Amino acid sequence: MSTKEFQKPPAPKAASDGSMIIPDAPPPPSPAEAESLDVWGFRDTRFEINEKDRAIIRGNRYEHSGKEMPRLLPWIRETLKIDLDSRDIFQPSYPTTIPEAFLSQGFMSAIREFLSPGQLESNGEVRMRHGHGHTQEEMYAIKYGQLGRIPDLVVYPENEEQVARLVEAAKKHDVSLIPYGGGTNVTDALRCHSHEKRMIASIDMTRMNRILWIDKKNQLACIQAGAVGRHIMSELRKYGVTMGHEPDSVEFSTLGGWIATNASGMKKNRYGNIEDIVLDVTVATAAGVLQRAGCSPRESIGLDLRRLMFGSEGTLGIVTSAVVKVFPLPEIQEYGSVLFPTFEDGFAFMYDLSREAVPPASVRLVDNLQFQFGLALKSASTGLGKVKSQLERLFVTKIKGFDPFKMVACTLVFEGSRQEVALQQSDLYRIAARHRGMKAGGENGRRGYQLTYSIAYIRDFLMNYYIIAESFETSVSWTDALRLCENVKHRLHLEYSRRNLPGKPFVTARVTQLYRTGVCIYFYFGFYFKGVANPQDVYLELENIARDEILNSGGSLSHHHGVGKLRRAFLPRILSPATLTLKRELKKSLDPSDVFGAGNQDLDIR
Amino acid sequence: MSTKEFQKPPAPKAASDGSMIIPDAPPPPSPAEAESLDVWGFRDTRFEINEKDRAIIRGNRYEHSGKEMPRLLPWIRETLKIDLDSRDIFQPSYPTTIPEAFLSQGFMSAIREFLSPGQLESNGEVRMRHGHGHTQEEMYAIKYGQLGRIPDLVVYPENEEQVARLVEAAKKHDVSLIPYGGGTNVTDALRCHSHEKRMIASIDMTRMNRILWIDKKNQLACIQAGAVGRHIMSELRKYGVTMGHEPDSVEFSTLGGWIATNASGMKKNRYGNIEDIVLDVTVATAAGVLQRAGCSPRESIGLDLRRLMFGSEGTLGIVTSAVVKVFPLPEIQEYGSVLFPTFEDGFAFMYDLSREAVPPASVRLVDNLQFQFGLALKSASTGLGKVKSQLERLFVTKIKGFDPFKMVACTLVFEGSRQEVALQQSDLYRIAARHRGMKAGGENGRRGYQLTYSIAYIRDFLMNYYIIAESFETSVSWTDALRLCENVKHRLHLEYSRRNLPGKPFVTARVTQLYRTGVCIYFYFGFYFKGVANPQDVYLELENIARDEILNSGGSLSHHHGVGKLRRAFLPRILSPATLTLKRELKKSLDPSDVFGAGNQDLDIR
Repeated sequence: MSTKEFQKPPAPKAASDGSMIIPDAPPPPSPAEAESLDVWGFRDTRFEINEKDRAIIRGNRYEHSGKEMPRLLPWIRETLKIDLDSRDIFQPSYPTTIPEAFLSQGFMSAIREFLSPGQLESNGEVRMRHGHGHTQEEMYAIKYGQLGRIPDLVVYPENEEQVARLVEAAKKHDVSLIPYGGGTNVTDALRCHSHEKRMIASIDMTRMNRILWIDKKNQLACIQAGAVGRHIMSELRKYGVTMGHEPDSVEFSTLGGWIATNASGMKKNRYGNIEDIVLDVTVATAAGVLQRAGCSPRESIGLDLRRLMFGSEGTLGIVTSAVVKVFPLPEIQEYGSVLFPTFEDGFAFMYDLSREAVPPASVRLVDNLQFQFGLALKSASTGLGKVKSQLERLFVTKIKGFDPFKMVACTLVFEGSRQEVALQQSDLYRIAARHRGMKAGGENGRRGYQLTYSIAYIRDFLMNYYIIAESFETSVSWTDALRLCENVKHRLHLEYSRRNLPGKPFVTARVTQLYRTGVCIYFYFGFYFKGVANPQDVYLELENIARDEILNSGGSLSHHHGVGKLRRAFLPRILSPATLTLKRELKKSLDPSDVFGAGNQDLDIR
Repeated sequence: MSTKEFQKPPAPKAASDGSMIIPDAPPPPSPAEAESLDVWGFRDTRFEINEKDRAIIRGNRYEHSGKEMPRLLPWIRETLKIDLDSRDIFQPSYPTTIPEAFLSQGFMSAIREFLSPGQLESNGEVRMRHGHGHTQEEMYAIKYGQLGRIPDLVVYPENEEQVARLVEAAKKHDVSLIPYGGGTNVTDALRCHSHEKRMIASIDMTRMNRILWIDKKNQLACIQAGAVGRHIMSELRKYGVTMGHEPDSVEFSTLGGWIATNASGMKKNRYGNIEDIVLDVTVATAAGVLQRAGCSPRESIGLDLRRLMFGSEGTLGIVTSAVVKVFPLPEIQEYGSVLFPTFEDGFAFMYDLSREAVPPASVRLVDNLQFQFGLALKSASTGLGKVKSQLERLFVTKIKGFDPFKMVACTLVFEGSRQEVALQQSDLYRIAARHRGMKAGGENGRRGYQLTYSIAYIRDFLMNYYIIAESFETSVSWTDALRLCENVKHRLHLEYSRRNLPGKPFVTARVTQLYRTGVCIYFYFGFYFKGVANPQDVYLELENIARDEILNSGGSLSHHHGVGKLRRAFLPRILSPATLTLKRELKKSLDPSDVFGAGNQDLDIR
């Protein structure tokens, strides 16, 4: 039987009834969107200690910006049992060392044939920025240590063809390519191998940032992989839709990065995780472009290479665009919060919620230490606000009898139609009451979610005061989750004190996602390192010990951060020998010359 | 950093509170469960024409069993415009030809070391049965034609280790293995290549049919891959849970087959499709056993080989067990149905339903011809039933003014809590009314679903009367779906009449699944072939033309039947050349000597 030849899917045309939309290219980034090279986030925002020895967030971007947090430093001193001196600054010497670039002349002349000079960047700090994500070791290294090998060149392709030609050129001239999105990775996935002898080119995808089309009738959109989360959200919103994917890094991370990392969004209960949202991907691989003639709601068409791209971490190719589901903007969005006397009560509530009701878009439960931390981040109330806040506290602790050193909070985001949200709320608060939960209002819930974005800046601030901290996560069944939290906290405290490290460590957990079959647990771990040699190595050792404890306790290697290089040593423990062998065979078959040489997941095949 | 070694997940122990259950092994199949070798289904059931020239379903297994269908034959004669003579039987000569078995002596002695004689079957009819599924060509071939190469041996492994050793032996002695579950495949995936020179062993998994454990607290179960759908349902039901996966073939198909085919269940709106339900798989591959130390609700652990098993169609390995989600049995189950004046009205209703409400577990919409077919399958009403049925018809056609040659029916299954179902019903009937839908009661809905099982027997019955028929499916966006249905019907009628084939063909469509982004369309196509040479080839040619039209109209190659060998010629049209290349490279890397030599999806690598 003869059949027709493969043809790329045709570009759709805008429909006059607005059902098919071809959005304009987004405007170039404004100066206000400039990002820091040496710390997390936008340049306009940073934590500082002001003249009154109070922590404050500079700038005016976030709800918490410009407000003093009078309780933060005292609380840190008290919790870590340290004498944090705000005049004693651990002065960063960013950028510590920027290696010379090694350029392959063959590759350079090949790519100059189809790229303009403005698409090639050789500046050292930009190159360095493209050689790391945001693990504590990486951030420590660029300021106090040595990052090692970094990309020799940063390339900004502007269309699919350029990406394909870049891959061709790299293959021909033996260059390693590492795709780069928002640079927010937290598993050393962007870090370059020190033993890499080839030229390394970082392929920065952020100029491929268009929403190519929005199909409102079928609730689909095709988006270029370099589009950044905040832009995707704001652009889609103009047309009344949302992709619904909001990881904590949504301000900076990209669609391609989400796919490569197998990301999870805060509102996954309503919209799904990235693998639920993405229907199709186009990928530039060493063998050519993975592409389909069309995409359908659901298919059974055999071995599906598209599925391999989720979690590929730059090792198989470069995602250039994806077809994603979009959803109408919710009729209403409401925040909520509930206080529980103990973490166990809150957890039991979440379990019942997962069984008996449709959970709201997002449900998160913090433990007592994190709850305290949230209070310590509050700005000073004045006047009536102060009275109200004091009265509230009195009611919770005195009347309800909640112990301030045991109580916890659950924050909620409801999205949907008025009717859906009303039903979710009534179900949820009924279940919460059964577990001694006390409604604590939308304002506290909103604050909790908004904090997600500004709190991300605190890590680099604290490092200036000899505090090193980071988060890590896992997923685990309902029945193992509480014991896992206890085990990890206990083990970290034990190992910390065994090493005679300063003061006490900060170890806290929250439940950030719920599934029918279990939860995602997110840990923060930090400590004061003044006088500690190589604190980043000490941190890493302890983090690995925590991971050991997580695996011992039935947790997974990762819920959504991924494996990268940070966690790859644990793979032989969770995957059978045949699985490891076949992963390497698969990598060899799809990329025999290791063009995509990031070497994540132990896929260094050269 | 050193880490621990991989260990198989430990076998769970039963918990005294009933939260962890280790079910007993299922009883051996009873004689009443005997299946036919030459036609679909259980031996106790078949369509026949009785002495009154009326069609009847023999046996008493199904709701429709034992009842005369007085309108069926007249309706077929009228619709196909043929003089079907019930005395003129196209006598099957099953089994037409059973080739001699070719046995590899090395393989035979190797496997006799760990298998008992009762695990090896060389009977010709059994071997032939394992060399096909249920496409029309296959069923025609075993009765009127020539199937060609069939397995030389059928092997019934009883545990994971035996499967692994079988794979080892096949690798060593150059034998091709084809995994076999329920034998219900409809894409020629089980059919053996005529050019296969090696011994072919069919690995019948149905003795690996245990539910290994049920974890009620985390709503999980671990089930061996050879467990048959009807047994999974009845066993799980004993413990108050369900997997919720009910493909049309659920009486016979197996868990392993569902994974290999990327199956879809009738109630996927509530429980998901197979890829949503299965959390983990254990697979015997040519490189060893793919397995993990545990499984978690959701993970980001890099390239995930588990995902490759969905749709692998026997080409990469043998799934031996899977961890699946289970759900509490629904508090209530209710059927429903709605009549619409036209297919377009019903379709518009489904679209709005997908947008505005939580759809019930199952929603199916048949076109007018299929609606008529449903009426023709009704048994004769008598007494009050007859009066009621006549009154109803009068009301629909006279009072409501529905045209009997345009009206269509939508059948519904609601499952969930009383409250959920009540909400779904009120939303649904409100939306239906907006599209001129008329509630037609639970009885008609129930009948529609029950028919799914008994109607499967009609194909082999009709073949005895020179009628060849089969189903095929696709998935397609909402906006392309109606036109696709029209195009396929029109094209088939046109090509049929161009070929001067007898009477008129039967072409009908139903919408069997809805997604936010589109639907699954299921076609039936049949015709009368008396006097037509090689009707199975004519059928195949027309089916391929229909597939061409489906692809032209924006449909997918398959929604849930898969690719197998039947549709593989279309792959180069829907996948880019690089995708095809990489699929073959991937197969070569995971199974270099083609132990899993079924050759589906054009993955014949020898």
